[in-house]
Amino acid sequence: MKFLAYANKISKKVEDFIYEVIKGEPKPLYDSALHYIKAGGKRVRPMITVLSARISGGSEEIAIPGAAAVEVLHTFTLVHDDIIDRDEFRRGVPTVHKVWGTEMAIVSGDLLFAYAYRCLVKSLDYGVTVDRIVKAIDMLTDAAITVAEGQALDMLLPVVDKVDVNKYIEMVEKKTAALFASSASIGAVLAGGNEDVIRRLRESMINAGIAFQIRDDILGLLGDEKILGKPVFSDIREGKMTILVIYALNQVDEKKSKRLRDVLGNRNADLSELREAAEIIKLSGAIEYAENLAEEYAKKAIEISKTLESEDVEALEMFKEVVEFMVKRNY
Amino acid sequence: MKFLAYANKISKKVEDFIYEVIKGEPKPLYDSALHYIKAGGKRVRPMITVLSARISGGSEEIAIPGAAAVEVLHTFTLVHDDIIDRDEFRRGVPTVHKVWGTEMAIVSGDLLFAYAYRCLVKSLDYGVTVDRIVKAIDMLTDAAITVAEGQALDMLLPVVDKVDVNKYIEMVEKKTAALFASSASIGAVLAGGNEDVIRRLRESMINAGIAFQIRDDILGLLGDEKILGKPVFSDIREGKMTILVIYALNQVDEKKSKRLRDVLGNRNADLSELREAAEIIKLSGAIEYAENLAEEYAKKAIEISKTLESEDVEALEMFKEVVEFMVKRNY
Repeated sequence: MKFLAYANKISKKVEDFIYEVIKGEPKPLYDSALHYIKAGGKRVRPMITVLSARISGGSEEIAIPGAAAVEVLHTFTLVHDDIIDRDEFRRGVPTVHKVWGTEMAIVSGDLLFAYAYRCLVKSLDYGVTVDRIVKAIDMLTDAAITVAEGQALDMLLPVVDKVDVNKYIEMVEKKTAALFASSASIGAVLAGGNEDVIRRLRESMINAGIAFQIRDDILGLLGDEKILGKPVFSDIREGKMTILVIYALNQVDEKKSKRLRDVLGNRNADLSELREAAEIIKLSGAIEYAENLAEEYAKKAIEISKTLESEDVEALEMFKEVVEFMVKRNY
Repeated sequence: MKFLAYANKISKKVEDFIYEVIKGEPKPLYDSALHYIKAGGKRVRPMITVLSARISGGSEEIAIPGAAAVEVLHTFTLVHDDIIDRDEFRRGVPTVHKVWGTEMAIVSGDLLFAYAYRCLVKSLDYGVTVDRIVKAIDMLTDAAITVAEGQALDMLLPVVDKVDVNKYIEMVEKKTAALFASSASIGAVLAGGNEDVIRRLRESMINAGIAFQIRDDILGLLGDEKILGKPVFSDIREGKMTILVIYALNQVDEKKSKRLRDVLGNRNADLSELREAAEIIKLSGAIEYAENLAEEYAKKAIEISKTLESEDVEALEMFKEVVEFMVKRNY
């Protein structure tokens, strides 16, 4: 796809910007804060910010600080999420709290949170007007609030045999899709985009973000450890209420449901128990269900993206490609 | 003192503002986020913001969102600090992570962090211009970055027998004094204060903040449990490198130093061991040393505050009273 080459270019610019801004002492704090950024990552959100700015009539350049801001905010949420989920690997490297300890990881996330704002305010040096910056800051704040609410909802989703799928969608919309939507609207607002474009960009991203997370759930069960950068079955070990688990618990008989619930969140479960739980989930038809559900949201996302108009035809094309990439991910 | 009645009035306004802004779902997230604010607190930082705005020619009213922002940012740091220090009580109530668990406390702090920015951006509704708001946002960000650095420095201060007092001062300046300084400069900048006033306000607050923290260390050893709102000796149990401990370790003989280091950070230490450690500290002359050091910073803070000029004589008087209150605290 065309956008992949462009994504490399933007990634490089955003990374250079981040390394220029996030510097300081003490060393363990800054090393831990930059750990995931150095480990790689797809930088999908910065691409969305830059393309949304271009679609809205702005240059790629003016969107770089905003693109860095959303990537840094995203990285902060990863650091804290990994503590909460007790994840041990991410992007093929040990998680921040595994290397530096939970206490440092908490502060490291906090530092990144602050730097997300620092990045965004630097839009001033790129000629963005203060009124647009204040609007973008409010959008970044909105995303941060919504992501925290989504994270709390995720933690509060109980491991029970009947969970409403709507509760899952609400959680995912807040925890995952909101930041994609804000990545788009921040780019658009920095470029002076109008309300209507911002609304469409956001709606497309909300739907794409939900599809993205559903596919993430599927990959967590079927994916390859090397590509995932973390062990398979970790969702099961952590007792995560993924769409697969929710569907399976809703479908299977009492005996299987109990067996599944016994393994979910049991950190001492051995590989054969994890495999058994995975089998129960697969045999329930959860994967087909989840794929269909992802497809529904993907369709909506693509449809809305097709209603966008812009003089920057190239940016528009690439935005649609990014939407496809998000919803069809198998990485 | 005159400012105490005024502080009550400002506290009320700031609290009303905070409760108006920080609302949402899920309930455990919002309950935990507001836990410390509801438990009381001196609201010194909001007072500093409001008085700094008045000194700089602004009204009390325009500074309320900024005052709320610094209080909310301060509260976020308390929630995360308490996890890190494993504190069990604060302001006479169990700490957030004790009531809601560490995971929720992490997210709860993150939520407050985001809401600090939300509060500040609401200055728009109070007629503050966007350029001043962007400056204030950058100051809030600067404070958040500096506090995280200070927190990391604190965690990295090793329990060894010789620690440079300058390292302690650097840590305290970042962890505690920086937010006092930003509370002042945010108020001033929202009101359009000039660079010179902002510089003096900040310098006064840096010195007052250091004196405040040294007195906090002293109170941690001598203070009354009911007034402190947390158990005595908790600094010793947590192995905190307070100025008292640093001085004592620098002064006492090898035998006492070893005894003290054995108890510091030992969470299983019983009351008699804690008392023994406290005795070693007291007999080393650490309290007199710390009081003299606090006095030095207090003097500088007061001197600088006296060089301030303003048409709002009442605000100027109260600001000096707040400085005195901070540096002579016995609460």
